[in-house]
Amino acid sequence: MSSAQSYHVAIVGVTGAVGQAFLDVLEDRKFPIASIKFLASERSAGKEIEFAGNTYRIEAVSESSFDGVDFAFFSAGASVSKAYKEAALKAGAYMIDNSSAFRMDADTALVIPEVNFDKLSTYDNNKLIANPNCVAAIMVMALGPIAKLYNPSRVIVSSYQAASGAGAAAVAELKNQTQAILNEQEPVAEVMPHVFAFNLFVHESTIEADGYNGEERKVIDEVRKILSLPELPLTITSVRVPVIRAHSMSLTIDFDESVDMSKIEQALKEAKGVTWVSDEQASHFPMPIEASNQYDVLVGRLRRDLSKDNSIHLFISGDQLLKGAALNAVQIAEYLIGA
Amino acid sequence: MSSAQSYHVAIVGVTGAVGQAFLDVLEDRKFPIASIKFLASERSAGKEIEFAGNTYRIEAVSESSFDGVDFAFFSAGASVSKAYKEAALKAGAYMIDNSSAFRMDADTALVIPEVNFDKLSTYDNNKLIANPNCVAAIMVMALGPIAKLYNPSRVIVSSYQAASGAGAAAVAELKNQTQAILNEQEPVAEVMPHVFAFNLFVHESTIEADGYNGEERKVIDEVRKILSLPELPLTITSVRVPVIRAHSMSLTIDFDESVDMSKIEQALKEAKGVTWVSDEQASHFPMPIEASNQYDVLVGRLRRDLSKDNSIHLFISGDQLLKGAALNAVQIAEYLIGA
Repeated sequence: MSSAQSYHVAIVGVTGAVGQAFLDVLEDRKFPIASIKFLASERSAGKEIEFAGNTYRIEAVSESSFDGVDFAFFSAGASVSKAYKEAALKAGAYMIDNSSAFRMDADTALVIPEVNFDKLSTYDNNKLIANPNCVAAIMVMALGPIAKLYNPSRVIVSSYQAASGAGAAAVAELKNQTQAILNEQEPVAEVMPHVFAFNLFVHESTIEADGYNGEERKVIDEVRKILSLPELPLTITSVRVPVIRAHSMSLTIDFDESVDMSKIEQALKEAKGVTWVSDEQASHFPMPIEASNQYDVLVGRLRRDLSKDNSIHLFISGDQLLKGAALNAVQIAEYLIGA
Repeated sequence: MSSAQSYHVAIVGVTGAVGQAFLDVLEDRKFPIASIKFLASERSAGKEIEFAGNTYRIEAVSESSFDGVDFAFFSAGASVSKAYKEAALKAGAYMIDNSSAFRMDADTALVIPEVNFDKLSTYDNNKLIANPNCVAAIMVMALGPIAKLYNPSRVIVSSYQAASGAGAAAVAELKNQTQAILNEQEPVAEVMPHVFAFNLFVHESTIEADGYNGEERKVIDEVRKILSLPELPLTITSVRVPVIRAHSMSLTIDFDESVDMSKIEQALKEAKGVTWVSDEQASHFPMPIEASNQYDVLVGRLRRDLSKDNSIHLFISGDQLLKGAALNAVQIAEYLIGA
């Protein structure tokens, strides 16, 4: 495909925060669309949707929905992705899947274009491309350029994850609870397991036998896969904080060799998709409020870790609906068409 | 001194959040008070203050204020502590100082009673006792019992610090900004360097030449001193989160020897001043909303760190106005009288 062409696009799962972000990104980045169709369950079929100034009617997704489609963006959960994978691929479409269904499949690429698009051709099933977990996606934007310079021997992360990562209902609950507390009323927790307003808690995904929760497990597995470092010693503690949008991370990265801080800083400043935010005098480092609605991931506060030789710290904030979801999916398609 | 006695108490610095917490703790714990006086700058002198059902008039602090005083609690900043240290000690009082003025002095003890009260007698100047930084105080409540079992070889911390650690004005600003955002108005940042509502940022203290900020430096120095591990490799990234009260921490603790997880869990469950909060099925771990207004520090989510042998993770929340300030100061006095 060449970028002079335009393409037939299908979007599966257009409701929800990520679905809306997909539409915004496709329009904003002027993805070359010949036709677009919106697919959803029977329940949502018939509803109208606005895109780029036009009104579309949502169609019920079926086996034949993908005939003639070049790019099918899936964002309707793992079960829908699994149910229509064969149909999409048989129709010859690229399936770009935002669910976790195929991310760890050995024959499926898990792609952050700036970091590992060059590995796509090494996967057998290379018309199905998985879009990573949002924390993994944001983290590798910093880890990727560093790992090209020096081999990390251990990565230790604590996350500060926003409400919108848990969906629009969690954001509404955070806002409602916050207003209740400001009014000196009791906050009500129905969507999240704990009060969210002016509070924080360990990520709500199920804790597994090893004590890690599902979110942490995804991040560990996916970061290793994206970086092609399957044995990378990586650990994370995932925490929800009462922030509306954009995930932040405190990183400690150990190396077995001595590292040149100025080279790492230079690599991050030059990295595509990264904005360097690091003003020590103003104590101005990556913050979710500044990362929100930004395509770039904010990276800064690079310093030597005084607890160990050859170890560094970094702080990162990134919009988990954009680089952590919709933007990255659209970028995969852009790379595929060479745009 | 024996606990049958009662004591003459002076409180220097009664305004502000910590001052109020002092009064609440002294009253709640029935500290045996023969007399109490409230001291402040000329500016605050003459104002009235309520304590244990009585009204007191705040006196201007002077060189002679400490005559006959047994315990002088200082919480008016480092300059006031420095100015009246000689007067308090010459009068024979125990000076329990919440400021950072003397914490790192070689002849002054920095005390968390449950952890290192037994070291007090080894300090020359042992009627002046420094009360630690709030993050250090909360952290050692978990690190202390663990370090008695196994020697930590490295400790890596990311903090989640509440607004009230920056004073009542920061809490008011957080609430005002939050209401503004909920009303779709622009939040105004005057007290803190960045918007606080639904945001987070690296701790606002000044960044030093090594890239660490003042808060992080205090925590590193003070934890080492309290644990009598002057060379302990310890690093922290201090972050402000939009939580009203209670600081939380994500800890990674490495050891050079193999550790028995059940022994660590048992030690933490048995530790005085610690409440074990760790229900994996309910994803219920320490949270600031539950640590607020609690004397105990909440500790839980003990798990093996999969990135390294002989390494563990823990999550902690503690009330920084209580164990991180007023409670600990009163407990120092309680230990001194053997209560």
